[in-house]
Amino acid sequence: MEKQERIILVTNDDGITAPGIRALIEAVRPLGKVVVVAPDSPQSGKGHAITIGVPLRLNQVDIFEDIEAWQCSGTPVDCVKLARDKILHRKPDICVSGINHGANHSINVIYSGTMSAAMEAAIEGIPSVGFSFLEYSYDADFSLPAKVAREVTERMLRSDLPAGTLFNVNIPVVEEKDFRGLRLCRQADAKWVEEFDERRDPHGKKYYWLTGQFKNRDTGEDTDVWALENNYASMVPVQFDLTNYRLKQQLEADWKDL
Amino acid sequence: MEKQERIILVTNDDGITAPGIRALIEAVRPLGKVVVVAPDSPQSGKGHAITIGVPLRLNQVDIFEDIEAWQCSGTPVDCVKLARDKILHRKPDICVSGINHGANHSINVIYSGTMSAAMEAAIEGIPSVGFSFLEYSYDADFSLPAKVAREVTERMLRSDLPAGTLFNVNIPVVEEKDFRGLRLCRQADAKWVEEFDERRDPHGKKYYWLTGQFKNRDTGEDTDVWALENNYASMVPVQFDLTNYRLKQQLEADWKDL
Repeated sequence: MEKQERIILVTNDDGITAPGIRALIEAVRPLGKVVVVAPDSPQSGKGHAITIGVPLRLNQVDIFEDIEAWQCSGTPVDCVKLARDKILHRKPDICVSGINHGANHSINVIYSGTMSAAMEAAIEGIPSVGFSFLEYSYDADFSLPAKVAREVTERMLRSDLPAGTLFNVNIPVVEEKDFRGLRLCRQADAKWVEEFDERRDPHGKKYYWLTGQFKNRDTGEDTDVWALENNYASMVPVQFDLTNYRLKQQLEADWKDL
Repeated sequence: MEKQERIILVTNDDGITAPGIRALIEAVRPLGKVVVVAPDSPQSGKGHAITIGVPLRLNQVDIFEDIEAWQCSGTPVDCVKLARDKILHRKPDICVSGINHGANHSINVIYSGTMSAAMEAAIEGIPSVGFSFLEYSYDADFSLPAKVAREVTERMLRSDLPAGTLFNVNIPVVEEKDFRGLRLCRQADAKWVEEFDERRDPHGKKYYWLTGQFKNRDTGEDTDVWALENNYASMVPVQFDLTNYRLKQQLEADWKDL
């Protein structure tokens, strides 16, 4: 009985038709009742955006065998909010997001719709996890990431985790025989160096495409980037209290005249 | 000489025509050379979204006296990236964002385009701060928030702050005689409880407006919400390393079988 009643909310940011979400659904299907609420279009890089200025559409779709699924016109965060309020009418037991087509390690956690959806659920007190595979292509082989997603989800469901627990899991592109397993990490201190690609439209007016190069300036061996470069799947516990307590303490001493 | 060369990047999320950004420009104008790069339309709630799927437009505008100003078709984060790469060609000395029409305390830091713009600059190693006024209306009196913005910006410019320093400053709606000054705070543990407003379009199909109620579940007197309720302007040092180190340490002990 208990197993039937366990609800697993599945979402993503690549959109409901992406192969990555299908792989995730199949991975977690044996663990409970799966309900999918995902964007109806690609929402990569949407971060923690919510939709305020326009209303949202939400439509049930039948594209996964025996799985209740809804597509939403909004962002990944909107999907989680709508799932909670209008579809599930209660907290799911866990929220899993992904499997993202492409990396979301290090600073990418901040830009990622995949991770923002999971974070939104965590803010609601739902144990949550985002999965990302370091292979962008649409026809990537999701068998290793799916195994990792299943293992992490099972582990989270059987563990007694604090409210608001959230993980950022990235999976390397590696042969299964060379895969070294999961590794708890911290977020690497890395960033993107932007180089906008400037072009001119047919009317002679300039426009810009965002492009950039990823730069890891962190040499630590406890980071997610290091783990992925060494054939581990990285698992970073993530928080949404953004207070910089160390700086706060320092300034309480330095800025007594405040 | 030094003062002439100091560059202050100003941005916001309410759009370049919002009264709040005009108040901020006037507040910081005496402190250096101001360059404005802001969205050409309201971008509230855009969080840390970036624009990937469509190109960006960037046009110089002449709406502030003797101030170089550009409007961008993208998100607040896009504005900061474009400013750095295509307009300034170097790091500004500080990035100030706002003054936002409405609160961005507690969990709102995650949804706020104002704060995400400032965070993007902080990721670049630029000292940054977002200002938000707890009054939504378009014709709010920005004299107190402008004074606070000036004071904080001056203080940041004369302090030797660590790279990536970022503040979330909120200003209460209060008579100046009752205002108690700036207070260093932590982010309150608060959240939004969503209640989507379900409607039907003229064709009978459902749509949803995001609405919600703000719930503060944090009774601490060291939070931003407490400070604002007690006539202080709140000042939260914010970080973009989202690693939950406490949980990481706990799981390193609990999950030895990982």
